[in-house]
Amino acid sequence: MYIPTFDDVKEAQKRISPYIHKTPVLTSSFMNELSGAELFFKCENFQKAGVFKVRGASNAVFGLSEEKAVKGVATHSSGNHALSLAYAAGRRGIPVTVVMPHTALEAKKAAVYGYGGSIVECEPSTSSREETFAKVVAESGADFVHPYNDPRVISGQATCSLELLEQVGKLDAVVAPIGGGGMVSGTCLALSNVAPETKIYAAEPKNADDAFRSFKAGHIIADDAPVTVADGLKVPLKDLTWHFVSSHVEDILLASEQEIVDAMKLIWQRMKIVMEPSSAVPLATILKNKNTFAGKRVGVIITGGNVDMNKLPWMKS
Amino acid sequence: MYIPTFDDVKEAQKRISPYIHKTPVLTSSFMNELSGAELFFKCENFQKAGVFKVRGASNAVFGLSEEKAVKGVATHSSGNHALSLAYAAGRRGIPVTVVMPHTALEAKKAAVYGYGGSIVECEPSTSSREETFAKVVAESGADFVHPYNDPRVISGQATCSLELLEQVGKLDAVVAPIGGGGMVSGTCLALSNVAPETKIYAAEPKNADDAFRSFKAGHIIADDAPVTVADGLKVPLKDLTWHFVSSHVEDILLASEQEIVDAMKLIWQRMKIVMEPSSAVPLATILKNKNTFAGKRVGVIITGGNVDMNKLPWMKS
Repeated sequence: MYIPTFDDVKEAQKRISPYIHKTPVLTSSFMNELSGAELFFKCENFQKAGVFKVRGASNAVFGLSEEKAVKGVATHSSGNHALSLAYAAGRRGIPVTVVMPHTALEAKKAAVYGYGGSIVECEPSTSSREETFAKVVAESGADFVHPYNDPRVISGQATCSLELLEQVGKLDAVVAPIGGGGMVSGTCLALSNVAPETKIYAAEPKNADDAFRSFKAGHIIADDAPVTVADGLKVPLKDLTWHFVSSHVEDILLASEQEIVDAMKLIWQRMKIVMEPSSAVPLATILKNKNTFAGKRVGVIITGGNVDMNKLPWMKS
Repeated sequence: MYIPTFDDVKEAQKRISPYIHKTPVLTSSFMNELSGAELFFKCENFQKAGVFKVRGASNAVFGLSEEKAVKGVATHSSGNHALSLAYAAGRRGIPVTVVMPHTALEAKKAAVYGYGGSIVECEPSTSSREETFAKVVAESGADFVHPYNDPRVISGQATCSLELLEQVGKLDAVVAPIGGGGMVSGTCLALSNVAPETKIYAAEPKNADDAFRSFKAGHIIADDAPVTVADGLKVPLKDLTWHFVSSHVEDILLASEQEIVDAMKLIWQRMKIVMEPSSAVPLATILKNKNTFAGKRVGVIITGGNVDMNKLPWMKS
């Protein structure tokens, strides 16, 4: 297992900068009053492909040798990594195949096709996804870019909090959502090097609390097919992300489904931005744990904005 | 009838700058490809109180003498001017009363109360609104700040396109939604002075096309209670806004209800911003009139972001 270093992050930052946005950081006096903290929202919903994952995917795709690149890339993903990889491969002009649960959001499938990617569908469980994917890779010889358990991907995601710190200066804490742990691992990798005093909190849906239980138990616990509105956060930790989460995360905080939806709606209403349920988990946990963050300067990672507009979680479908 | 001058605009800009945001201008490669034009979205949905109208309201409120200010201000409004005036009066610490149709969006009523304003309800028609309001003013002695037919308000709204030009440089055209004509009049007042070569287009719902018919007929035609999803654009032109619209507007372009809703949904999905139906009318008309705007640098005024999240126009309620 190769563990990426801060040199890999600096290299990633140079490599991907032509293909990604330097996303804005928004503040809101309403949210500051409500939370009692000073919040800095890093808006990766405005990122290319609508999500931070384009950072890691671009780092993997543009780091490939010419020889490897011609065979293309492949991945499995609940959606956002898929379209990020499709975006990056499209920019480089190489083939990309993604294995995706047939229940994935239509908006995400459409975006993968829009970038020129191919989709192979599987059942909405971790086991089915991994089985189907093994077949695809065996047939195509494509380079496997894992959604999160890949040093190239983690180095790419790390550029997000590096950028955040360049934009707003010192922070007391950063709160990022956790599913497989790619964003959180990147945050750990960047901050443990440039701002070791900044505490890193992972925010997780109570309905998919495998990272929380892993963190408390001291080893990886994986669930198959948890059910949560935060559909980007259903996947389990793997060895590489477990390495970062177990060494650098201060705590993992949980939020209920209702708390996540309420936080999402509040951000849409008050900050006038479109972001996905996964991105609302950090604010939901901050509002639940006010004492932890009171008076602190806190970075909040808004991870993405890819939402099915016909299925908003506070509306009847 | 006092017709505001460019000096009034410069004075307004100085007067209101401590109380308003310099809002960002967003661009979208997707929208540019779709339209064939280069679009610059001036995002007043990120403005204080969620709407450009806070510019005009702040100019009126902070321009009052101490003597007048203590009696407070009052207005009638379909919503956004109401909460803008409530915001401005709140910042100055003076009383504010608004007459509002009982059908106004709950989100807008709540925001008026949130800023400390009082509401008197009326029927959802222009005539009922004006009758109810006359009573309120007679009783309170408050200063009447009309939603749009007021030189102080128009001078304030004019700061929006002035700011847009400072941010992006020369434009071939600016497209703004038209209801009563306050934003369009402000745009005319600013651009006819600093960029007379920039063409000004007003965008109007076909279901509330009184400005369009007025423009073609050469005199004001007013409808009572038109029905459109763009609830901020139901009010008719008045003498002062008619002055600007009839002298400086290049054309008034119409969009159907479906075209407005489609444009709104597209902006939410692709640009990841929350904005209201009225703000989608400009893009809807641009996409309908591609030849007019092809290859041009076009400013698009996103007027506001105050939406009832429980009643999105593309969802069943």
